[in-house]
Amino acid sequence: MNELEIVDRLRRLSLPSKDVVLGIGDDCAIYRPRAGEELLFTTDQMIEDVHFTRSQSAASIGERALARSLSDIAAMGGEPRFCLVALAARDTKWIEEFYRGLLRLAKRTGTALAGGDLARDEKHHCDVMVCGSAPRGKVLRRDGAREGDSIFVSGRLGKPWDRRIEPRLALGQSLRGSATACIDLSDGLSLDLHRLCVASGVAAEIDRVPVMRASTVERALHGGEDYELLFTLPAGKKAPRGVTHIGRVVRGMPGAIEFQGRRLEPRGYDHFSEHS
Amino acid sequence: MNELEIVDRLRRLSLPSKDVVLGIGDDCAIYRPRAGEELLFTTDQMIEDVHFTRSQSAASIGERALARSLSDIAAMGGEPRFCLVALAARDTKWIEEFYRGLLRLAKRTGTALAGGDLARDEKHHCDVMVCGSAPRGKVLRRDGAREGDSIFVSGRLGKPWDRRIEPRLALGQSLRGSATACIDLSDGLSLDLHRLCVASGVAAEIDRVPVMRASTVERALHGGEDYELLFTLPAGKKAPRGVTHIGRVVRGMPGAIEFQGRRLEPRGYDHFSEHS
Repeated sequence: MNELEIVDRLRRLSLPSKDVVLGIGDDCAIYRPRAGEELLFTTDQMIEDVHFTRSQSAASIGERALARSLSDIAAMGGEPRFCLVALAARDTKWIEEFYRGLLRLAKRTGTALAGGDLARDEKHHCDVMVCGSAPRGKVLRRDGAREGDSIFVSGRLGKPWDRRIEPRLALGQSLRGSATACIDLSDGLSLDLHRLCVASGVAAEIDRVPVMRASTVERALHGGEDYELLFTLPAGKKAPRGVTHIGRVVRGMPGAIEFQGRRLEPRGYDHFSEHS
Repeated sequence: MNELEIVDRLRRLSLPSKDVVLGIGDDCAIYRPRAGEELLFTTDQMIEDVHFTRSQSAASIGERALARSLSDIAAMGGEPRFCLVALAARDTKWIEEFYRGLLRLAKRTGTALAGGDLARDEKHHCDVMVCGSAPRGKVLRRDGAREGDSIFVSGRLGKPWDRRIEPRLALGQSLRGSATACIDLSDGLSLDLHRLCVASGVAAEIDRVPVMRASTVERALHGGEDYELLFTLPAGKKAPRGVTHIGRVVRGMPGAIEFQGRRLEPRGYDHFSEHS
């Protein structure tokens, strides 16, 4: 297959969307915004030998690449609308498999494939941009946590890397209007909670974390790639089912965190830090 | 600098925008659509040893990466609103230079930097997504060329690779409401005109092409990376200043092109073709 044939095939496989009035095949995709919506945009790279290895299946990489960006949409309380996929790959067979995994998750989450870019390269590299939507003024941000708020996390933490990501889209949407702040755990609880607290100008005290079976508290605190939601609710506000109350927002140096009475340093993943 | 410091710095350097209500620093950027606008989306990769070499300046790569996506926005008649930049790089110095080049062009064209993704990798790789805007129903597409239309091209063709790209944003916007079809020349006149004709279900006859000084007709016909606009106007419609009339749309096999009476094969750049 050549590039035109691949693109033709993707166009046929892509989910139809009434918002994407022109999808794959022109210089740009065209999106017609709905009245009263705000649009959310996020992009995430997955790079061979940085985020995955050659031994992993192309379908699992495709699915994961989309899932990571969908998790950002979930963290802001959005509903996914469409994605653009930039992909560099060695051969068309790998590309087909990558898209098979990606499009399966796209279909399940209502995400249209609106376009992208294809290049041939020895090293696999992809970048998935997702556009989501939320009612105007209802977007969840990371900067609204206030002293006295309760802190919650979804699921259990300390996932092994190869576990599938299930973006918490329904949970994020259900938190619109009640959560004061929300972030997804992509770089580890200690670093992501630190970020939320810095953005909100508050400190936090954590009593416990829900640890995944066969994992450790250490990994649950500092491991990346959990892709659960970390959020704050005003004290006394009813939390959704299936989430764990882990602590509270307190006054203090912005970003300072205590875990069971001791200072917890942010030690999650930072691509450009000297320490990681 | 670590990742947080780089991101902080980019936030300060980024152009303020009233449409981008939340930029760099949260899980997603937030864009508030204006009434009556349609949004255009495009993404383009630039990869070390595929699109550029290590010897080129990071600033020129950053500028070019944005320019290529802006050229797609120009081809649809859009005004740029914001961009997201996914970047993998070896060191922070290169990243700073890359962004210096990119932000210079972003400022000049009114494109806000709304977010992105950073990773450390030995191989430089970037992907720039641009969102543009056009009044509803006024977007230029490639599928509207009709028999009898005149064909035009901006500038002169056959550029050497290292020449700066000047995205034809003002020209594209001026063609809204008059051009029947438009495409940007990213892969060479012969291939891009072929694509426009296939999309429109028409054939074309070309009499001449404007050739850049020190280039050749062969390069003007088949060289990629000119980033000029190729467009069609109904016969007799006045063309903007500074463009060249190169031929006409005719009935025939969709995509078939004649140059000075002879069949012209599409031979531009196709990453996954066996022939290129």
